[in-house]
Amino acid sequence: MALEHGNPADLLPVHWKSQVTAWFAEDTPRFDYGGFVGLLAGVPFFDEIFAQAGCSVEWHIKEGTLVDPGASGKVAVATVTGPVRKLLLGERVALNTLSRCSGIATKSRDMEVLVRKAGYKGILAGTRKTTPGFRLVEKYGMIVGGVDGHRHDLSSMIMLKDNHIWARGSITDAVKAAKATGGFALKVEVEVDSEEGADEAIEAGADIIMLDNFSGDGLKAAARNLRQRWAGKREFLLECSGGLTPENVETYINNDIDIISTSSIHQGVTHVDFSLKVDH
Amino acid sequence: MALEHGNPADLLPVHWKSQVTAWFAEDTPRFDYGGFVGLLAGVPFFDEIFAQAGCSVEWHIKEGTLVDPGASGKVAVATVTGPVRKLLLGERVALNTLSRCSGIATKSRDMEVLVRKAGYKGILAGTRKTTPGFRLVEKYGMIVGGVDGHRHDLSSMIMLKDNHIWARGSITDAVKAAKATGGFALKVEVEVDSEEGADEAIEAGADIIMLDNFSGDGLKAAARNLRQRWAGKREFLLECSGGLTPENVETYINNDIDIISTSSIHQGVTHVDFSLKVDH
Amino acid sequence: MALEHGNPADLLPVHWKSQVTAWFAEDTPRFDYGGFVGLLAGVPFFDEIFAQAGCSVEWHIKEGTLVDPGASGKVAVATVTGPVRKLLLGERVALNTLSRCSGIATKSRDMEVLVRKAGYKGILAGTRKTTPGFRLVEKYGMIVGGVDGHRHDLSSMIMLKDNHIWARGSITDAVKAAKATGGFALKVEVEVDSEEGADEAIEAGADIIMLDNFSGDGLKAAARNLRQRWAGKREFLLECSGGLTPENVETYINNDIDIISTSSIHQGVTHVDFSLKVDH
Amino acid sequence: MALEHGNPADLLPVHWKSQVTAWFAEDTPRFDYGGFVGLLAGVPFFDEIFAQAGCSVEWHIKEGTLVDPGASGKVAVATVTGPVRKLLLGERVALNTLSRCSGIATKSRDMEVLVRKAGYKGILAGTRKTTPGFRLVEKYGMIVGGVDGHRHDLSSMIMLKDNHIWARGSITDAVKAAKATGGFALKVEVEVDSEEGADEAIEAGADIIMLDNFSGDGLKAAARNLRQRWAGKREFLLECSGGLTPENVETYINNDIDIISTSSIHQGVTHVDFSLKVDH
Amino acid sequence: MALEHGNPADLLPVHWKSQVTAWFAEDTPRFDYGGFVGLLAGVPFFDEIFAQAGCSVEWHIKEGTLVDPGASGKVAVATVTGPVRKLLLGERVALNTLSRCSGIATKSRDMEVLVRKAGYKGILAGTRKTTPGFRLVEKYGMIVGGVDGHRHDLSSMIMLKDNHIWARGSITDAVKAAKATGGFALKVEVEVDSEEGADEAIEAGADIIMLDNFSGDGLKAAARNLRQRWAGKREFLLECSGGLTPENVETYINNDIDIISTSSIHQGVTHVDFSLKVDH
Amino acid sequence: MALEHGNPADLLPVHWKSQVTAWFAEDTPRFDYGGFVGLLAGVPFFDEIFAQAGCSVEWHIKEGTLVDPGASGKVAVATVTGPVRKLLLGERVALNTLSRCSGIATKSRDMEVLVRKAGYKGILAGTRKTTPGFRLVEKYGMIVGGVDGHRHDLSSMIMLKDNHIWARGSITDAVKAAKATGGFALKVEVEVDSEEGADEAIEAGADIIMLDNFSGDGLKAAARNLRQRWAGKREFLLECSGGLTPENVETYINNDIDIISTSSIHQGVTHVDFSLKVDH
Repeated sequence: MALEHGNPADLLPVHWKSQVTAWFAEDTPRFDYGGFVGLLAGVPFFDEIFAQAGCSVEWHIKEGTLVDPGASGKVAVATVTGPVRKLLLGERVALNTLSRCSGIATKSRDMEVLVRKAGYKGILAGTRKTTPGFRLVEKYGMIVGGVDGHRHDLSSMIMLKDNHIWARGSITDAVKAAKATGGFALKVEVEVDSEEGADEAIEAGADIIMLDNFSGDGLKAAARNLRQRWAGKREFLLECSGGLTPENVETYINNDIDIISTSSIHQGVTHVDFSLKVDH
Repeated sequence: MALEHGNPADLLPVHWKSQVTAWFAEDTPRFDYGGFVGLLAGVPFFDEIFAQAGCSVEWHIKEGTLVDPGASGKVAVATVTGPVRKLLLGERVALNTLSRCSGIATKSRDMEVLVRKAGYKGILAGTRKTTPGFRLVEKYGMIVGGVDGHRHDLSSMIMLKDNHIWARGSITDAVKAAKATGGFALKVEVEVDSEEGADEAIEAGADIIMLDNFSGDGLKAAARNLRQRWAGKREFLLECSGGLTPENVETYINNDIDIISTSSIHQGVTHVDFSLKVDH
Repeated sequence: MALEHGNPADLLPVHWKSQVTAWFAEDTPRFDYGGFVGLLAGVPFFDEIFAQAGCSVEWHIKEGTLVDPGASGKVAVATVTGPVRKLLLGERVALNTLSRCSGIATKSRDMEVLVRKAGYKGILAGTRKTTPGFRLVEKYGMIVGGVDGHRHDLSSMIMLKDNHIWARGSITDAVKAAKATGGFALKVEVEVDSEEGADEAIEAGADIIMLDNFSGDGLKAAARNLRQRWAGKREFLLECSGGLTPENVETYINNDIDIISTSSIHQGVTHVDFSLKVDH
Repeated sequence: MALEHGNPADLLPVHWKSQVTAWFAEDTPRFDYGGFVGLLAGVPFFDEIFAQAGCSVEWHIKEGTLVDPGASGKVAVATVTGPVRKLLLGERVALNTLSRCSGIATKSRDMEVLVRKAGYKGILAGTRKTTPGFRLVEKYGMIVGGVDGHRHDLSSMIMLKDNHIWARGSITDAVKAAKATGGFALKVEVEVDSEEGADEAIEAGADIIMLDNFSGDGLKAAARNLRQRWAGKREFLLECSGGLTPENVETYINNDIDIISTSSIHQGVTHVDFSLKVDH
Repeated sequence: MALEHGNPADLLPVHWKSQVTAWFAEDTPRFDYGGFVGLLAGVPFFDEIFAQAGCSVEWHIKEGTLVDPGASGKVAVATVTGPVRKLLLGERVALNTLSRCSGIATKSRDMEVLVRKAGYKGILAGTRKTTPGFRLVEKYGMIVGGVDGHRHDLSSMIMLKDNHIWARGSITDAVKAAKATGGFALKVEVEVDSEEGADEAIEAGADIIMLDNFSGDGLKAAARNLRQRWAGKREFLLECSGGLTPENVETYINNDIDIISTSSIHQGVTHVDFSLKVDH
Repeated sequence: MALEHGNPADLLPVHWKSQVTAWFAEDTPRFDYGGFVGLLAGVPFFDEIFAQAGCSVEWHIKEGTLVDPGASGKVAVATVTGPVRKLLLGERVALNTLSRCSGIATKSRDMEVLVRKAGYKGILAGTRKTTPGFRLVEKYGMIVGGVDGHRHDLSSMIMLKDNHIWARGSITDAVKAAKATGGFALKVEVEVDSEEGADEAIEAGADIIMLDNFSGDGLKAAARNLRQRWAGKREFLLECSGGLTPENVETYINNDIDIISTSSIHQGVTHVDFSLKVDH
């Protein structure tokens, strides 16, 4: 019979936060988490996952610092304390979160270092091409890595694309409608594919201009022309997106561009591996 | 026995969207909704409430137009079609929503008309002092009434108050921290209680300056000084909040102020009364 | 980089109840909440909002007592203790709730005082014309103000209106069906527009009769007739609704009526203003 | 490889209501549901479960009628139409609901018939001793079976027990507090263990008196005494609970008692068996 | 007025976990729960329900042991400590859960004892014919009673019935498709109505064979034949379901069958009664 | 005023499924989605996302087929039809899902092809190291790519690790406890780090043995020894995990191993890019 083998409450899922029963009382060991090279990111999520599983966490290094195990191959980053079965419930979710968040932070910082070396003075940002349901963690990882998270969702900035403009008739009408319904609290960004479009958007009061389908020297020329034409007349930011890689950084950089956004810092990113070492 | 008196399924709450059974087939009358003087607002909510209750709605006037029953006292604004018991399930929720939303739209338009008459050219806006859980409807009512809804929540603009500044040490440090974590997509507003504070915030890059605890001539002088001192150097908006009433509009208006925000357009507002007239 | 400016965990929304990290440890000041004239109502909601935001509340006056700041203009009603950023997360929601709940309690008590002065001995009650999603708070405010909250929802009393009766064929059939399906635990109220309707409903066993479309002397005569005709035969309550204002109280009062219900005590009510005073 | 064997979308759980894809188009057979002897109850739940699974239901007999397969052993009660895999997703949940709801309705009607034969004229009711999370279905089954469902939850009637009274000091104080906070819309029931307690509760205005710990002749005497003592003075209902079985019905019945409540009609009830017959 | 009678916060439902206010401080008595004969089951659910209601529980006997009150009729099984009103909020839900869970555990153990006495060496299991929304508790009760809970849901084992097979064309194709999409981690069970069907399923790699529509000697012969025919060639389990009762146990038992599943251990089960005894 | 610029209902988020109003009627264009090289996966999710946003989808290629745009660089995979603003609400979520799911399917098939070329006849499987909240999509992508999804969660197979065994005292005790509580429906897998551990687990009845910390020739020798030692005595599966890369496939393959599991097919995977081409 099942009862001969132990506590049937072990069968319950994690949301049944049953009281820690008597025979777990003596069974609360400590577990060390070790990590490999990378930037540590995701501390508040890791903490909350184990808090909900009924365990507590003590950190040995701080959020955003480099995990560097040296020759030994692995270094202890945190110690988790709690009953064995609760730790096992929380472990995989916590590690999946920490590994992916740290992977994004690491890739973000690496790219940030590269663009600074190449002389870029503007903003490096991510995109909204994130994993559905996991955006909060991924944007957080970018910020820990020193990169701008870009707008969080459809409600935090108004982005007018080709289709909005086509639906309104003109860039000017689309920007006016956006400002009337969004109000003064939200910024308005317009995606354009020509200098004329950019001029119309700036004239209509857009806060940010996304130069789409421009590249190389064409991008440089357009950015320079817009800067000069509107100097002292309007304040606006210029953004370009896509295509940035570690290999093309040198030729890509352009200080007339205020924001370079790229999903390469959070898509297809190598996870930073963390694992559990039991401390009998 | 209960069954002698009809269908026991009538006892089920609205979320049991049971199929419309045979004996309701012949029982689908139409109902006219009549309204009193005021601006109609809340159409999509009214539609969705009745859609969830299994009824359909046909509108006789459009969102944002004036309901004006004339001498008759009441005019039909919509006809709702559906089984009696489903209509009764949806009725009170739908009317409560429409009445409150229309009340806010009406008060918003009235105040908008008053400030325009007094010569104000800037933005009139609401505040976040809304009913918890009902903000979406209330902000929507303001926008239908022609007023700016102001920021929707804590995530859609960064507002730095006395406490944030005190926690960071200086206005400059608080603004820099806000811009670093919020990123380029969010605007930053700073609440200040002196011209010196406003200068520091503008210098640090704030997008909007809220002049708190200023009033009357002091407000006018401060706004004028800031405009002149920063002309051609920085773009920023000036906001003042509170105290605006139909009575003080004349003396209150000041075109150096870009935004006047007030909760008087959505708090303590008279509901626009709507009611049901059965169409046997 | 964002990390130079502080803790990226500050970006997380309130439901990420991350552990209070080390650098907030020294940052747990106290805040005093001051209020203006009115009845204090909403204490358990205010407590729960701040509990969820990770702050604690100490009250200086009790639920249901009069806040009276005297000449000073404002008096401390509560002290909230917690980290600055958590307090700011909870503040607006807590104040919006307290202000609206206290406004309803204040208006309810004022009307209660007026009807007592006018000699009314029956029950003064609110209605179901409340803000969707916020009914619990609004009914609670009425009760703190000394007024009867009336039925809470469609499930807590059966209210038969014109349409129910029309769907069943007669008042008698509608009341019998209601009693059969609702059972003995629920009261049955019938809305009638004639003395004959009232007689039929009382005969059929209704617990409460709502006299609709009666007013002034007609209402008085009907109530008097019903009382006399059924004396010693049936127990029932008489209710009238709508139209009660501070101005018409004198002429409105009628002690043959057991219940006067009015939405004027919870709609379009002036908020009681509360605000925060930091206690550095 | 998995794809050689068919559509991987088949792996998705029911809440992924993917469009009915092309290769299911030809695969929409009909299924007959057969049942054994008992009262049919649970039609709206059965309908909604299959509606959510994407199938439609056609009923051959009506809610509340007797399923009587005669010698054949089983009779078709409904035909369900839909794709095989969707039908299999909904089948077990639908049958579990129908079987249990019908079992309760059947047992309720059987007990109702027995007490009527024994001459009882009052109300037979269930209790709140229902399966957590499934009360709505169980109360519904009772009502279909012709029995009073008793109060649905803690909010639909105020029930004062020993502990409430002890906490308030006296029955009178407890009833007065209940009426003040519950308002006129809710009935108040008091559980007493003596005739003196009953008298005090009736005097204080209780609507229903539960005679607890009374039985046999003691119960009869108490009920008779209370009826005589309060005749023409107060209206109230007398309730007794528990202990009723098919065997003791004769000796149990007492027409001075208005309500007999029992959980024997919904606990430990034999399910009415329904099963699927594929209609190739 | 309501306030004269006490704390209006008492009106709030359990999810408003308001702080324990001052006037409840002295009001935290202890309550003893007594039970009748049966196996105690449901401890973690009882604990969690009272934890959510703000009370704590101390157990006097352990999960899975026999409650035996002897001649006294009732024995204390647990003591619950907390404010009166919170205890009353949690009481009925907690008792309903404990009574039903213990009833299932008791019936399960009784049947387990009977089949062992009759010489059965295989597995006794429940079915998925459980109360919707309450399966977790019912499966748990079976396991405490010493019986196998069978698969928990559609995702924890693949069960191929007549309809799946018919949809695929053959048993072999259905098993292959199931193994390809379910992967190596899930077992596959096939329901067959002939020895030939069983042979085909075993050949195709099914882990478990459910012999449906077999009974008595036919079942015995089929099981014996399959065992002999596949000895040393394939490992598989044989299951039969339905029809097992305390009366037919002797003739039913058959050690060529590995699993006997029955819903008689969890449907129509007598509740184990538990009740509250206040400890003034 | 906002109303001059269009429909205020455009401001509502996607869950306010307001009726398609009149002025959107003429505005329902078609949009083509084009994709780059890779395996198409995620069709039912893409369909459901657009269904919830109020758009419909027509596919030009089937789930699991190769998208091959040839020299043109992009090929149309689907056409989405719906109002512009609704399409824009659903677009990013739909593309993020399709790109990631297809990326995993593509990488899974590539690895599957490689191990087959290298002569491997066993099962290639993923792991539980997936993105929290997105596992269903990722496991689905693996299956479309022809790889085994491994167990879905903690409830679908029992996996005993070092810590479980240490908590129980021995491998034998841990396996017995797992089989008693999990029942016959769930498989049991044991992670061991020695041949002796594997022997003990097989003896105790484990269904699957995970050889941890074995590699290269040590892994081959252990697998061969276990196969020979238990031939004809027990059926079990051998699994090894981790370390598999496109580069080491040749030396890694070993047909005494039944399952090779690897997170390299779903972590750090390049997205398959899909984008929108408006079809004016």
